Amino acid sequence: MRFCPQCGHAVNMIIPENDNRVRAVCPNCEHIDYDNPRLITGTIPMYQGKLLLCRRNIEPRFGYWTLPAGFMENQETTSEGALRETLEESGSHAICRQAFSMISIPHINQIHLFYLADLQKDDFHATSESSEVALFELSDIPWDELAFSSVTKTLEFFIEDHKTGNYGFHEDTLIIDSVSE
Amino acid sequence: MRFCPQCGHAVNMIIPENDNRVRAVCPNCEHIDYDNPRLITGTIPMYQGKLLLCRRNIEPRFGYWTLPAGFMENQETTSEGALRETLEESGSHAICRQAFSMISIPHINQIHLFYLADLQKDDFHATSESSEVALFELSDIPWDELAFSSVTKTLEFFIEDHKTGNYGFHEDTLIIDSVSE
Ligand SMILES: [Zn+2]
Ligand SMILES: [Zn+2]
Repeated sequence: MRFCPQCGHAVNMIIPENDNRVRAVCPNCEHIDYDNPRLITGTIPMYQGKLLLCRRNIEPRFGYWTLPAGFMENQETTSEGALRETLEESGSHAICRQAFSMISIPHINQIHLFYLADLQKDDFHATSESSEVALFELSDIPWDELAFSSVTKTLEFFIEDHKTGNYGFHEDTLIIDSVSE
Repeated sequence: MRFCPQCGHAVNMIIPENDNRVRAVCPNCEHIDYDNPRLITGTIPMYQGKLLLCRRNIEPRFGYWTLPAGFMENQETTSEGALRETLEESGSHAICRQAFSMISIPHINQIHLFYLADLQKDDFHATSESSEVALFELSDIPWDELAFSSVTKTLEFFIEDHKTGNYGFHEDTLIIDSVSE
């Protein structure tokens, strides 16, 4: 940020009074801009024992497979965001069961949150964001072609819990330094 | 947002191409500004069977009791944010056990996330943000003087799980319309 979003004046990068972090502070109107981590919400969509994955039609990680997920928007809940992204990326109407994984990725200021979800029918299809949408047997997950480490980690947790049928809530931190994420 | 943070030009509030929401778009440099929900992280800090609460020394809800919590910052994990806020508001060094509650508050674009946490010793004290910091027996929680609905809801979940000793992960949505939050 170089200019004040409220008045257009050039900002100073300084630590405001009663704060301990550098913020963009406007010397003209005194606006302080706070930049905070963003939440990515998505689903692990299941249909008749199979897992839905989307092949990315956009950068980053064009051509790789992913769980449907994206930036949460204002005025929605975490599960609403997850279902909206599932619809946008796979054309499918899902229902959330429970939050399943929450993965902090501090070097890119993101938190990735995935829900266990069930498709109501096999109404998925390719979209502008996904060149291909397909159901996979859990034994056929394309591990070497997954788009993001948070997806790999979430599916590892899922496979482990699937063995017992006891699905917990899993937290993790990714400290990888990858240009792809 | 009225001016472009990248170049200072006045922005237009329009739906960008390939999008479906109104964003602040700069006609000069083409910057698109995305405004997303913010995550508030905090703890349910326990010490020898008692609960730590902070009496707010700042608005909103000045004078009311709350769990230590605040906006998550860049470059930290959710639990690091929760522990930092606990230290800043109560002077106390806690350890996170597990994520316990996640409450979406869509009308203010916030998600409140609370961790079960243990104080390592009784090193808490008043701070610039808390006029008073105190341990409460669970039977003495000041329910009528709690600052925020997300705190009340989280403590209700906590008291319920405390009866059995089985602590789950709880999700909820607050759709109240309160000026205080
Ligand atoms: Zn300004
Ligand atoms: Zn611009």
